[in-house]
Amino acid sequence: MAASAPSAAITALVPYVAIVGAAEASAEELAAAEAVGALLGGAGAVVVCGGMGGVMAAGCRGAREAGGTAVGILPGLDRSVANRWVTVAITTGLGELRNGVIVRCSDAVIAIGGAYGTLSEVALALNTGVPVVGLGTWEIDGIEHMGSPAEAVARALELAQR
Amino acid sequence: MAASAPSAAITALVPYVAIVGAAEASAEELAAAEAVGALLGGAGAVVVCGGMGGVMAAGCRGAREAGGTAVGILPGLDRSVANRWVTVAITTGLGELRNGVIVRCSDAVIAIGGAYGTLSEVALALNTGVPVVGLGTWEIDGIEHMGSPAEAVARALELAQR
Amino acid sequence: MAASAPSAAITALVPYVAIVGAAEASAEELAAAEAVGALLGGAGAVVVCGGMGGVMAAGCRGAREAGGTAVGILPGLDRSVANRWVTVAITTGLGELRNGVIVRCSDAVIAIGGAYGTLSEVALALNTGVPVVGLGTWEIDGIEHMGSPAEAVARALELAQR
Amino acid sequence: MAASAPSAAITALVPYVAIVGAAEASAEELAAAEAVGALLGGAGAVVVCGGMGGVMAAGCRGAREAGGTAVGILPGLDRSVANRWVTVAITTGLGELRNGVIVRCSDAVIAIGGAYGTLSEVALALNTGVPVVGLGTWEIDGIEHMGSPAEAVARALELAQR
Repeated sequence: MAASAPSAAITALVPYVAIVGAAEASAEELAAAEAVGALLGGAGAVVVCGGMGGVMAAGCRGAREAGGTAVGILPGLDRSVANRWVTVAITTGLGELRNGVIVRCSDAVIAIGGAYGTLSEVALALNTGVPVVGLGTWEIDGIEHMGSPAEAVARALELAQR
Repeated sequence: MAASAPSAAITALVPYVAIVGAAEASAEELAAAEAVGALLGGAGAVVVCGGMGGVMAAGCRGAREAGGTAVGILPGLDRSVANRWVTVAITTGLGELRNGVIVRCSDAVIAIGGAYGTLSEVALALNTGVPVVGLGTWEIDGIEHMGSPAEAVARALELAQR
Repeated sequence: MAASAPSAAITALVPYVAIVGAAEASAEELAAAEAVGALLGGAGAVVVCGGMGGVMAAGCRGAREAGGTAVGILPGLDRSVANRWVTVAITTGLGELRNGVIVRCSDAVIAIGGAYGTLSEVALALNTGVPVVGLGTWEIDGIEHMGSPAEAVARALELAQR
Repeated sequence: MAASAPSAAITALVPYVAIVGAAEASAEELAAAEAVGALLGGAGAVVVCGGMGGVMAAGCRGAREAGGTAVGILPGLDRSVANRWVTVAITTGLGELRNGVIVRCSDAVIAIGGAYGTLSEVALALNTGVPVVGLGTWEIDGIEHMGSPAEAVARALELAQR
């Protein structure tokens, strides 16, 4: 096995954490997403997201620059729309139903900001028992709101282990 | 970006090739799958598969030992059933409909052996215009049958570029 | 064609309206759902729902008792779990992702009560441009809240025509 | 409940049988599909299909003219593309993955003719244990080939009861 390949034994055990948020995001949300991605990538977690721009791209960039892995679950069939920081892009052709796949392949979700797509991911997660940590997102019962990327990542990793 | 991370620019451009075949496979099929995986991984392609055992595990092992990336698209919600050579495991909860996602995120499909699941992947690929290369698989019009892993990979990579 | 069959020409043109709400619901929510179903069925709309109990069953019962058609989009593979008022039960095997199919096959959504599944349907609808009318449901921007079943149905049918 | 509504108790118990075949079909295939639909509709079975033209439309027409119910599971989001004989049209937005939903909501499948989409439905059915009866279709192990619509329907209804 090449030196650069992640250890197989680790692959099965590392947490997968979704970063969900909008393609159109504020500078503050983008900074939060990049910090979250960097902390997750540095901790060895796999970052999962919708693979597009905005919060998704910022989270992937953070993860990759920290040496981590970023998975983009795309709505359509065109891989070239993926942001340039995803390690692997999965074109699903499921449209916005891919939001449910993002949730399903994650052990915890970190929600940033307030778009409807984000809300659907939060709701699908809460509906299926995937824990949700929030950073400046919807005020929905069941989300654990945190004050900083560091707190959000620490809590998400804790919840993901259960 | 860490030295071991694949280049983002390359990530968007590399071909994704599915290796589809059964969890219960003959020694010959397993050897073919591992050789196919190794050739794809060595060529810089991303190997996509169903993430389980048999042909899937052999293909992933080949890819990883050649320094490549292997994606497992799993039917259920339990990541721990993935074979130990996947780089990334996507739990979809879609059951056997995940076969369609395997096809959708691939630029070409290499089919090995003759299970019904494999047939569904071949049919979904042919039905949606994804080229299919065969190694000892179903005799279905539209599959390009090849005589060796090297021929199959060369043809799949050629078809994937179109 | 048998006298009891709906006219084919009408079938293509009638609105499809989803009634989304929880399996565990209050007496008030159940009464609202039944009234909504009866008004939709009486107006010739097809009622779409998740096919299970609670709000879903009440909506179907209302629709059927008014001579209407009720479609249940089920999460699993067992048709026998459908409530006894569905005209047609579709077992999808998609789990909670079937919530997205409910939204996709509807021209408008009427949300009753406040479960997470309901929230996911509301969010998926708002995210994809399907109008949402609410009766005692989540306070989410984009939902048009109405005070009675009659108002909710009138508004949903108006929005469904666009 | 209106006199024309199917009995709820029966609804839960009637078999659902898919008629799968191509949108472009021969006159012989269309005649077979219509006869199959008529026999299924007359027997009280719900006919499931892809909701489009060709074999699908012929099967629905047969079912409806016999007083039966026909469900069309559509690939896209536009209900108006459904053939005019469907009782209920479900727009899934799943593309060709809707073939898997057709199979999942059916107790048996009758395959007519030889398109790739039909093959995917046959393969998904055989892969998940749904019995397949064939009329002039793919020569695939596991399909029970019959010589006439009457034989095909009789066998499909027998297999659906198990």
